[in-house]
Formats: sequence, C-alpha cells, structure tokens
Amino acid sequence: MSEIHALLDRIAQEDGAIGAFWQVDAAGALATRPRGDGPLSGLAIGIKDNIDVAGLQTTAGLAAFRHVVATQDAPCVRGLREAGLVILGKLAMHEGALGATTDTPGFGRCMNPLRMGFTPGGSSGGAAAAVAAGFVKLAVGTDTMGSVRIPAAYCGVVGLKPTRGLVGRSLVVPLSPTLDAVGMLAATPRLAGLGLQAMVVEDLDDPAWRPAPSGWRAVPDAPRRLAGLRIGLPEPVLAAAMEPALRAAWTAAAARLRAAGAIVEPVALPAWDPGAARRAGLLLLEAEAAALHPALIDDPAAASAGFRAALAYGRDAGTTRLVRAQFLLRQVEAAALRLLDRYDLLLMPTAPQRAFAHGTPAPVDQADFTALANFAGLPSLAMPWPAEDGGLPASIQLVGRPHAEALLVGVAEALG
Amino acid sequence: MSEIHALLDRIAQEDGAIGAFWQVDAAGALATRPRGDGPLSGLAIGIKDNIDVAGLQTTAGLAAFRHVVATQDAPCVRGLREAGLVILGKLAMHEGALGATTDTPGFGRCMNPLRMGFTPGGSSGGAAAAVAAGFVKLAVGTDTMGSVRIPAAYCGVVGLKPTRGLVGRSLVVPLSPTLDAVGMLAATPRLAGLGLQAMVVEDLDDPAWRPAPSGWRAVPDAPRRLAGLRIGLPEPVLAAAMEPALRAAWTAAAARLRAAGAIVEPVALPAWDPGAARRAGLLLLEAEAAALHPALIDDPAAASAGFRAALAYGRDAGTTRLVRAQFLLRQVEAAALRLLDRYDLLLMPTAPQRAFAHGTPAPVDQADFTALANFAGLPSLAMPWPAEDGGLPASIQLVGRPHAEALLVGVAEALG
Repeated sequence: MSEIHALLDRIAQEDGAIGAFWQVDAAGALATRPRGDGPLSGLAIGIKDNIDVAGLQTTAGLAAFRHVVATQDAPCVRGLREAGLVILGKLAMHEGALGATTDTPGFGRCMNPLRMGFTPGGSSGGAAAAVAAGFVKLAVGTDTMGSVRIPAAYCGVVGLKPTRGLVGRSLVVPLSPTLDAVGMLAATPRLAGLGLQAMVVEDLDDPAWRPAPSGWRAVPDAPRRLAGLRIGLPEPVLAAAMEPALRAAWTAAAARLRAAGAIVEPVALPAWDPGAARRAGLLLLEAEAAALHPALIDDPAAASAGFRAALAYGRDAGTTRLVRAQFLLRQVEAAALRLLDRYDLLLMPTAPQRAFAHGTPAPVDQADFTALANFAGLPSLAMPWPAEDGGLPASIQLVGRPHAEALLVGVAEALG
Repeated sequence: MSEIHALLDRIAQEDGAIGAFWQVDAAGALATRPRGDGPLSGLAIGIKDNIDVAGLQTTAGLAAFRHVVATQDAPCVRGLREAGLVILGKLAMHEGALGATTDTPGFGRCMNPLRMGFTPGGSSGGAAAAVAAGFVKLAVGTDTMGSVRIPAAYCGVVGLKPTRGLVGRSLVVPLSPTLDAVGMLAATPRLAGLGLQAMVVEDLDDPAWRPAPSGWRAVPDAPRRLAGLRIGLPEPVLAAAMEPALRAAWTAAAARLRAAGAIVEPVALPAWDPGAARRAGLLLLEAEAAALHPALIDDPAAASAGFRAALAYGRDAGTTRLVRAQFLLRQVEAAALRLLDRYDLLLMPTAPQRAFAHGTPAPVDQADFTALANFAGLPSLAMPWPAEDGGLPASIQLVGRPHAEALLVGVAEALG
C-alpha cells in the first residue's frame, strides 16, 4: 500500500491550497485490502460528497447536512469496492449540486489545479480537481445537467455520464431524480469506462434503475475503428456563442475524425433550443428538489439564500409551467433519439467557455451543451483537447445512443 | 358494399335508442373503396370523437370543440384506411375523455346495449357500445387510465391498450400525454390485435412515438400454448374490494390457465397501492390537461363545471404535489417492470364492478385495476368472461411486458 500512502502524503501537503477533499479517510484507505486483481484493483478513488460512504459524512455541500454521517455505502460505492478501488475520502462540490463553480458557502472554494484562483467548475468540482491534481486517477461525480462533464472540461480530465437508469442512485442525495446521474471522472477514457462499469450493480431502491442489456460493457475489447462512423454536429450548437478556442478545438476534433474515415456533418435538431431547454431543465430540477427537500427552503441556517430561492421558485412555479417544461424536454428527448437512429454519435464542445476566476459571475449558459444528454437519457463523455491559444485546455463532448458507453470510450481513446 | 349498407341501415334504425354514434358518415362510408385484401379489408370501423377524421367533427365531448372539423386524418386513422377499414363515423365518449360513464353534458347519454338505461362505461363508451350492438366489429378508443378497457368490460367486448409509444397520438385531442394511449375495441381478440397493428404507423409529431421493435406484430402466427407461462395475480388486487361475480370470474380464468399448464400464483407488488396510485394519476392528468387546455377552465360555456373544476384542481395543486405524484407513479412503473422480468403476464379483473344505471354516482375505483398499465406503459387486453350469477358479463384483464401485444392476443384467443 505504499502508493496509497504516497497519495495521502501528497494530499496532506498540496490539497490545503486546492481544497479538492472535504474529508480524507487516511485510516480507512490504509486499512483497505483491495479486492480482486482486475484493472482497478488497488487504485485510489475519491467520492463526491453527496454519495454515501459508510462512516463518512454526506454533506452535499449543504449546511443542513453538515453533520450527517452515512451508515452504509451507496450501491455504486459497493461496486467500486468490489472492483478493488481504495476510497481516499469525500470530495468538494457545489452547494446541493445546484451550480457549477464549487464556491460553496460555509465549505469554501475549491481551486482549479490548472490555474489557482480559478473555479474547477461544478458541481463535481472537487472530483475534477482531485484527478487534475493527480491525487486520484478516478473520482465519482453526479451530473444533473452537466455536473460531471463541466468540471472535467474546466480541469482538463475525462468525464463520463452514463445512460439513464444504468447506475443506481440509492443513498445519493437527490436533486432531480428525472435528470440525476452518477458518473465518473478520470485521467483517461478507459479508466472512466472501467470505473463506471464497476458502479453498474443492482439497485432496486432506485425506481429508475434497470439491468444493463445482456453483454453490456463500458469499455471496448479492441481499439475502435473510426472509419464509417456517422457523427453529427448539432446545428443549435454550431449557432451558439462560445469561446473561439473552443470552436477551434471542436473543428479540429471533427477534422481528425473525418481524416480517420468518419462521416462528420452538421445535423438539424430544431426541437432543441439550448437556452429554452436549459430553462425548462432548471425549472424541473428546482421543482423536484423542492419536493424532495421542503424543509431547506424556509430555514436560513439550512442553505444559502440563493439555493433556497431556487427551490422556492420551483415550488411556486405552478403545475402548468412545470408540465410545459416537461413536455418541452420530452420533445428534445424524442428528437435526439430520432437523430441517433441515423447517427452513431453527436460531437460538440463540452461547455461554451473554459474555467474562469472565482468571484466572477458564472455564465448562464455553462450547461447548455451538456444538458442535452440528461434530458434525453443518453451517455456522454467529455475529454480534454488542446487549445490553440495555449490557454487552459478545451474539451469536446461525445453523445451516444443509450448504452453506447463503450463506443464513447473507444472513440475517445482513438482520438486521445 | 352491401354489408356496409346493411350496417348503416341498422345504425339508422337502432342507434337512436343507444347513442353510440355522434356522427354517421354514410356518404363517406359508401364511397370508400377499401384498400388491399388483408383480413381487415372492407370491415366497418368507428372512431372515438377525440380523434381526427378528415371532414368530420372532433368534439372530444366538449362544448368548446362542438364545431371543430378535422382537416386531415390522424396518423392512426390513416393506418386504418391503409388496412382497408371503412370508417362509418364518430363515436360517443365521456366529456373530454375524463370520466367513465359516457353521460356527456350537451351530447347525451350513451346506453349499454347489454342493458338499456345502464352506462356503457367510458370514456370510450360509444366505441364499446357500437361493437356490442354489432354496428361495427372494431372501434378505436383512447385510454388514459382505463378508457378503452373499462367500457370493453361493461359492454362485454375486447379492449386492447398498446405499449407506451407504439401508436402515435398526433391529431388526437390530448388529456394527459404521459398516460394517453390510442387503443382498439373489437368483437374478438384477433380483430383487436389486427386493428391495433394497423394503427402502428410513423408519427414523428408525437414525441412519445418510437418505431416498433423489428418484427413486432400484435397477433400471433400460431395458436398460443399456455403451458409453462408464468402468470401473476397481483396481491393488491387480491386484497381489493370487487363484486363477488368478478372475483369468481377471475378465479375461473386463473383455474383455466392452470389447467392448461400455466404457472399462476399470487405476486407481491407492494409499491402499487391502487387507490393511492389512482389519486396520483388523476392529479397528473388534471395538471397536464390544465396545461394543454387552459382556456377551458374559466369559461362556463366551454365545458361542464365538473370538468373545469378537475382541471382547475390540477392547475392549482402546486408543483410539489405534482412531483410527488410523478415519483409515486414511477415507483409503480419500476415495480411492475421488475415483476414482469419474472412473469410473462399479470392477470386481474378489468374493473371492480360491472355496468351500473345511468344517474348512479360513478364508483371512485372504476379505473383502479386498469390504470397500472398506463402508469407502467404496458400493453393490456380486457376480454369478457361469463358471470356465474347470470348477470352482465365479467371481464378479465391481461397485462404484459412492453411490446408483448401478440402474447396478450394469443392467450386471450386460447382462453376464449
């Protein structure tokens, strides 16, 4: 276990400035005898602080939950232990998983290891920071509209959100059960796939959980050939505002795929107006979060004023606005599924911007490109891509058909 | 076309007392040159009055829509014409498809042909009455919590509600897009299956529509063997109140299946409290209907006070109650799907009671047994069964896995 020891030492020395970990379980990690001899056995992992790990706190970044201690592992955490992973501790996150800066009142600011003073993104900001800092090669996050993939993009690591229903969410603090997914951040696409695969275990307490299709795996057996793949560039994203360096990275990724023999072309998706869909998604998640956490709304000691106002907004929006938001999201889902009858993948930037300085107002469109996969229940992988301006890395996002995780990982490996 | 002529004559003579048809399109029917030479070619069919048939009114039983004339056929109606069916006209229904007596303010009471003065059930009451009276062998209905199967039960005919997403609903007046299904009432299980199959056509304007699985059909090629089938009797229904003759019919059907070699046994389904689920379903449909038809709510000339009050209730319930209702229904769906991982079919009575006299208050639990299939998106077939007390017929209901329509039809034929 000297490697775990070395990582704990590095965290002790370096994480004071970064703040990726909210709890380090050095004793538990050092006492772990990793199971099995699979590819993950003995590797270190961190867990976002809204997922139960027996004996550790589960705060979800909310003052109200600051002293909640989990009595058992979430099913997805059990799966990770069974694969031999060693849990180092719990990771920083945006308050209540509702937001993408990981500047969390009462818990502190997590820093982006690529540029101190900058946000790592969120809500799984600590997970991305821990991987980017080299404290762990894998970290578990959750993703409601982009909360695994946005911090992966900002920190230059890989983020993988699975197909709806694939990873159970029992003993994970819910925000929006319709949209929430447990996902994996990692140093490489393969590690993200293997880590995700380890979390695919039975979870009968999550009504959305369904068994994976027979033979499903999250990683390909052989290198993935790119020739002949049909890849769409969604027109609503082509028309959206984004940093020039991110558009250039996207163009470069498309060119690389084309050079490898893939058919890469713009595809119409008129049902998806990213801004309108984001507003509908926010209303849905605020209404669901309000129904799940009503006691937080009116208690100033439970959460920040902003968090409570968001839930109050969802609570008070009225059923007609909520129903219309749901109908809009179902139209987006249907259109995306139909498009993927004809295309193997969609390719787009992960976010419209790169990391920005803590204290800067967060752009409203941070999750516009990532949320499509949540609305449609599709797997999505974010991977870093060099930025032509030499600044922070760009990130590109692949979105696939339900249960096509292995294709995403394979294409990302072929591109990487 | 002498057969169509004869049916139109019978309708002219007999339907004045029944009121199954709201519009008879004699000229259109007699001018129809039926297409093809398939099993449905030349057969007469009626269409519930919330489904567009070009040139005919689509009232949905609502005063507000009394003079709406459809300019084109709904996609499902196009499919019926392509199969060679001859449309005789539009059928009576409960106001707005929200209710199950087909005693519709301003449109009149539809009578049960098996016992005049009694309700045919609803909301597709005219469809069931038209088949029971022998005016047509097939009739199209819609089913949000049981509106195809309840009238089929009350009138002693077959009703088939398809898998969610199988039959598109464009140009069908929506009540609750989450729960609404277009289904088929017919004189025999095979005709119900064939009629349903004819409605399975592309419908890209319905976001829930998805292509049927490759090779899908609604009728079996060969007689269905019952031996070895695993059939569950849901414990929440075993524990529910119902007419003794209906429990006896259910028991007799179970015994017949057992005698044929099926494994028939009680199955636990604790997530499904039929009364609680019904209340959640009603709230969902009222909230969705309110969002779709806001102009009806406050206009006394648009609909009855009861209908408007129901929609106002859904509009004003608040997002938290709606979200909790949706969560409850998703738990019911998950539990039913998991049960059907281990059982081929569920068997239960279609409704807790038989038809009752018009003017009698409608029992609150009419849809308690049928709504499960709507909540879970499952196909369900209701078929008549003799009542041991010699009264109106009983009805039993089969519920299957998604896309198992052919199994339902095959088992119903084997039982019939």
